[in-house]
Amino acid sequence: MAQPRTLALDAMGGDHGPEVVVPGAAISLERHPALSFVFVGDEARIAAQLAAHPALAARARIVHTTQVVAMHEKPSQALRRGKGSSMWLALEAVRNGEAHAAVSAGNTGALMAMAKLILRPMTGIERPAIAALWPTVTAECIVLDVGANIGATARQLTDFALMGAAMGRALFHVERPSVGLLNVGVEDIKGAEEVKAAHALLKGAADLPLDYRGFIEGDEIGQGRVDVVVVEGFAGNIALKTAEGTARQIGQYLRDAMMRTWLSRLGALLARGGFRVLKEKMDPRRVNGGTFLGLNGIAVKSHGGTDALGFASAVDLGYEMAESGLLSRLAADLETFHGRLGEVPAPNEKNEHERRA
Amino acid sequence: MAQPRTLALDAMGGDHGPEVVVPGAAISLERHPALSFVFVGDEARIAAQLAAHPALAARARIVHTTQVVAMHEKPSQALRRGKGSSMWLALEAVRNGEAHAAVSAGNTGALMAMAKLILRPMTGIERPAIAALWPTVTAECIVLDVGANIGATARQLTDFALMGAAMGRALFHVERPSVGLLNVGVEDIKGAEEVKAAHALLKGAADLPLDYRGFIEGDEIGQGRVDVVVVEGFAGNIALKTAEGTARQIGQYLRDAMMRTWLSRLGALLARGGFRVLKEKMDPRRVNGGTFLGLNGIAVKSHGGTDALGFASAVDLGYEMAESGLLSRLAADLETFHGRLGEVPAPNEKNEHERRA
Repeated sequence: MAQPRTLALDAMGGDHGPEVVVPGAAISLERHPALSFVFVGDEARIAAQLAAHPALAARARIVHTTQVVAMHEKPSQALRRGKGSSMWLALEAVRNGEAHAAVSAGNTGALMAMAKLILRPMTGIERPAIAALWPTVTAECIVLDVGANIGATARQLTDFALMGAAMGRALFHVERPSVGLLNVGVEDIKGAEEVKAAHALLKGAADLPLDYRGFIEGDEIGQGRVDVVVVEGFAGNIALKTAEGTARQIGQYLRDAMMRTWLSRLGALLARGGFRVLKEKMDPRRVNGGTFLGLNGIAVKSHGGTDALGFASAVDLGYEMAESGLLSRLAADLETFHGRLGEVPAPNEKNEHERRA
Repeated sequence: MAQPRTLALDAMGGDHGPEVVVPGAAISLERHPALSFVFVGDEARIAAQLAAHPALAARARIVHTTQVVAMHEKPSQALRRGKGSSMWLALEAVRNGEAHAAVSAGNTGALMAMAKLILRPMTGIERPAIAALWPTVTAECIVLDVGANIGATARQLTDFALMGAAMGRALFHVERPSVGLLNVGVEDIKGAEEVKAAHALLKGAADLPLDYRGFIEGDEIGQGRVDVVVVEGFAGNIALKTAEGTARQIGQYLRDAMMRTWLSRLGALLARGGFRVLKEKMDPRRVNGGTFLGLNGIAVKSHGGTDALGFASAVDLGYEMAESGLLSRLAADLETFHGRLGEVPAPNEKNEHERRA
């Protein structure tokens, strides 16, 4: 039986505000009737949208504010000026126990900074991460970090593995999600020092609630070789954007190729059912929502430019994560793991600190 | 008028040896009649292949050796044991002026290590890089480093920009190739410290023979926004592999989508001319060959598993680079740039060195 769950939505975030957020919530409510919502933002605009969605209105509460974080504000500015904004109050609703998760299509850097300040990192977590859902030939996998931070120590990479495994357990319903470390080669001798040290830590951690599969390379992400791919945020962000760009590029090749002759045009017309399936498969709205992991609360970031369907995917993600109780389980995993690290010094731990000092 | 150029080919490299290398050279010779070849490896096997290609045999010389670098040998082992191997002798032919470039489909790490030892880095170059040709919606761009090293200082990234621009000038025939720095966001405040410092160096270098366009993100590589994309080798290798994997993944989606119904099968049959064009466009053999840049000589690495058509692309690349005289031009550019760096300290130069000490 699905548990009732409340999500706090930043109604003003993204390029379109309530005109996308409210219809998006309505779509997600149809899929998850146990949901209720707190909409934070301009009451008049939110109410105008809710009028068209009576079933949603019956399960919604509005928290009014006129203050909004601009899409291109720097995180430091947003922190100084953003207190009382729709983004801020949505996160506060999670901290105060009024909502189980927050969802915003607003400024990523500002959301990350505010979420860290308001929700606070979990005990023992040095760096929260942004996890992305990545479509694969079999289903989906989780990739983290895709840009919360530049660089990561071995210890932080190992925390990412635990955080990603907790998310994988919640979304994929497997007890020990498989985890790979993204590297430039699969041999033990290759790769960045931090990655090699994280490999050693994870190899020696058979009691962790994950199935560590060693190094994987960039071309294996989309093959669905593992449930969770761990990488520091610079390379992770570049990998994510490169995959998005490659998909767009091939879509363009395909359109050009089908327009070349009247025969290929006719063929494309007949095969349009197949092309529709392909388009759905490659639709970036189908998998929308980066999740901040490692905080005492769930915050989901939707693409800023998405429509109601895309925003609904981010709401679904917030719901599934809130529904699974993953945070308490993750807290226990982290305690076990960090307790053990206290006994055995991590390989290269000293080098790490020297290098990053 | 095309200049006569001699290439030294490691006939034993790759999964297939002379059975791919010799027919590959024959294809390239048809496209570039000014070529001649030194084949290094097992004389009997090479001669047997040459017998089927009389035009090539007339422009070929064989240097016999039975010694071969194994595909999975570590670079350090290869250096110790590989003296006199087909890979080694092909590189020596370049150093000794008997060939203008070497091409090998052998072990990448071994080739890099041997090329550094035999050809030596150019004056002022701390780290050679591997440059890859990357297909874009408009044509192709150059991405470097795709895996010669992990990490790069600001100075090294700037050297990569010069090296990539020299290659761009040779291949794309533009005097000032456009250059972008791969980063996680396009604002000046974002990204790794090294990348920001390289950005400052390149912005202030209007006299360099390149058109610096600032930061670009992963999704812009395939859009062909710039001729040359600069990134350190860990993220660069992951980006390259991720793009390859995404292309394969979408190819599989497409095949599955076209097989769904008899109507889409029929449509795909009629549109097969279009699909053939798409397949050629996405054929990894069309753009094959990583180039080692920053050495006193040209060394091209072909994919190990490629066929004759793919190996011919790597030979073409070696020819175009040898034909252009890019090394002497690059040497002059580096001297100008490093001379100026000597006068003005690079931003964050001190931080760089502290961090990497």
